[in-house]
Amino acid sequence: MDPQPAKGNPELNRLSVAPRRPVRLSDIARLANVSTSAVSLALNGRPGVSSRTRQRILDIAADAGWFPNAAARALVGARTGIVGLVLTRDPRDIGTEPFYMSFIAGLEASLSQSATGLLLQFADDERAEVDTYRRWVAERRIDGLILVDLRVNDGRLGVLRDLGACFIVVGDPQYASEAPAIWSDDARAVAGTIRRLTELGHRRFARISERTTMAHTAIRNSAFVTTCAELKLPAPVLREAEPSAVGSRAATAAVLEASTPPTAILYDNNIMAVAGLGVAHQRGLRVPEDISLVAYDDSLLCESTHPSLSAISHDVHRYGEQAGTLLLEVITGQAPQARLDSVPVLIERGSTGPAPRAS
Amino acid sequence: MDPQPAKGNPELNRLSVAPRRPVRLSDIARLANVSTSAVSLALNGRPGVSSRTRQRILDIAADAGWFPNAAARALVGARTGIVGLVLTRDPRDIGTEPFYMSFIAGLEASLSQSATGLLLQFADDERAEVDTYRRWVAERRIDGLILVDLRVNDGRLGVLRDLGACFIVVGDPQYASEAPAIWSDDARAVAGTIRRLTELGHRRFARISERTTMAHTAIRNSAFVTTCAELKLPAPVLREAEPSAVGSRAATAAVLEASTPPTAILYDNNIMAVAGLGVAHQRGLRVPEDISLVAYDDSLLCESTHPSLSAISHDVHRYGEQAGTLLLEVITGQAPQARLDSVPVLIERGSTGPAPRAS
Repeated sequence: MDPQPAKGNPELNRLSVAPRRPVRLSDIARLANVSTSAVSLALNGRPGVSSRTRQRILDIAADAGWFPNAAARALVGARTGIVGLVLTRDPRDIGTEPFYMSFIAGLEASLSQSATGLLLQFADDERAEVDTYRRWVAERRIDGLILVDLRVNDGRLGVLRDLGACFIVVGDPQYASEAPAIWSDDARAVAGTIRRLTELGHRRFARISERTTMAHTAIRNSAFVTTCAELKLPAPVLREAEPSAVGSRAATAAVLEASTPPTAILYDNNIMAVAGLGVAHQRGLRVPEDISLVAYDDSLLCESTHPSLSAISHDVHRYGEQAGTLLLEVITGQAPQARLDSVPVLIERGSTGPAPRAS
Repeated sequence: MDPQPAKGNPELNRLSVAPRRPVRLSDIARLANVSTSAVSLALNGRPGVSSRTRQRILDIAADAGWFPNAAARALVGARTGIVGLVLTRDPRDIGTEPFYMSFIAGLEASLSQSATGLLLQFADDERAEVDTYRRWVAERRIDGLILVDLRVNDGRLGVLRDLGACFIVVGDPQYASEAPAIWSDDARAVAGTIRRLTELGHRRFARISERTTMAHTAIRNSAFVTTCAELKLPAPVLREAEPSAVGSRAATAAVLEASTPPTAILYDNNIMAVAGLGVAHQRGLRVPEDISLVAYDDSLLCESTHPSLSAISHDVHRYGEQAGTLLLEVITGQAPQARLDSVPVLIERGSTGPAPRAS
């Protein structure tokens, strides 16, 4: 099919077939009846053509199917219009744990407003994750990165800085080593939840957490222990588990087998809480009469269990949006400070209630 | 920091700082004590150097942090190592409906084995989706595309073909217009489900579907109506809804308000079934004693409702993996035929049971 100048209804033309031969500046110049250099000035947003002519050239270029060549632009140092995200988690967990899909959907919502694409990759371990960053930066694939699952003493921060990568951190600024961070105040959220549950008579708490090398886990654990101490409660139970249904099941069983088990268990995500609820059912425990359970984050999954799960809730979709906005600011040369997205709050549903009398 | 040739423990070197100045072929030639043209031959996999020398050059290049420049490679027509996926759905639905996250996780699992990245974009409507394809192809951003949510008479197929795009279709070959397709046999799955439910005494069925312009909806609707006719059942109810919780709630309420309501309702995804279960609870209907409900696809969400949801189940993660494998075959010049991924089967859980006596 020969490339044809666009004619007639521009709406139809845009949906119709694009020419296979790339449109050249000379093609546009001919259609617009101007010089090739005028086309170049107009398309590159440089002075030298009137705004009316510029608009006419842009319209004709768009109708003719002209696009800047990404490779050519990247070679001269222009932006790629792509940002990267590596998830170092088991893909099967990612498919069931609602946090990341909501987060990514929110991220996309803000990126798409500036026609920025998201390059998504899963990695088996931190080594593979860092190799991916290194490759993306060396190959100039991306304009910036979003670093998630922030660790305590996170070695990735130094690597990204030394690579000269443009990036933001999703996580608490105290562990972000001065990098721009978007965060939610988990310490206040956990403290508020413990206080509320003590109002319901609970005194013996357990927390089944993700790996304690994770920054958010460290922060939540610290707030958990500190708040229990401030309230002069018995020493609470902390138990680390793989952040999956399987990991949580084993940890929940172990916690419930203690001689004086807790009356309330806090989990670190949705899937772990759903799995914990299953263990309680299996052991013949009534929820919340015998034991109260609390999820972290929130989703339709929490609303659809029986009983529905109380959750330390924040708007994960909006969290992703805010992350996208922050990264775009960094990419365009702004130097934003760490930004607090939210203080999650306990949403009380069917899985929490007054502590059992006997306790 | 000056670029330094890698020395000492290569493990440490790989995790340590990469030089900011890109490594040049001449750097590698100097380190390897060979000519620059020998380096070029080795790195591009061309004959002219011994396999031992080639390996030595490759090792030195890797240690020195050399990567091919993506932009330069793309300019000469090499592959970009990126494939694209556009989702034209409400990002908030995507965040709650488990299908796409599982599918993407599976897709990633196969792509990552060949170091291929996934460029993910959300679009508001089909126009925006097609514009994205057009831009990606024109800018040479991607090696191939995965087309999802196949429509009846899908105009996107012709556009992609005319763009010269390399792509596969996720959907039934009868609507894929000869493009390589990965599919699941929904017609057999629906027919099998109706037959099984009639064994339980059900005779009045309803199906609450996604938009009937969707190929999978058309196929499922057709199998649904045909099977009911073959079994000489009363004419079943078909009701189209937005593929969301809100859409399903209204449709379920309308179906249940009929003078002779169905005793079993089939839904087109997870979220719609969960929402339908909520409506049944609200109206004081016991599930499954008064009404049986069936979800499509399957996930932890179905397992965690009360009662748990019976589902027409297939392994969505594996479906995504197979899609990735098929696309990589197409990209590497193979011409695969349409490939059947699975025939989904009814997994019976708590939401289906014998039809109520009165019916």
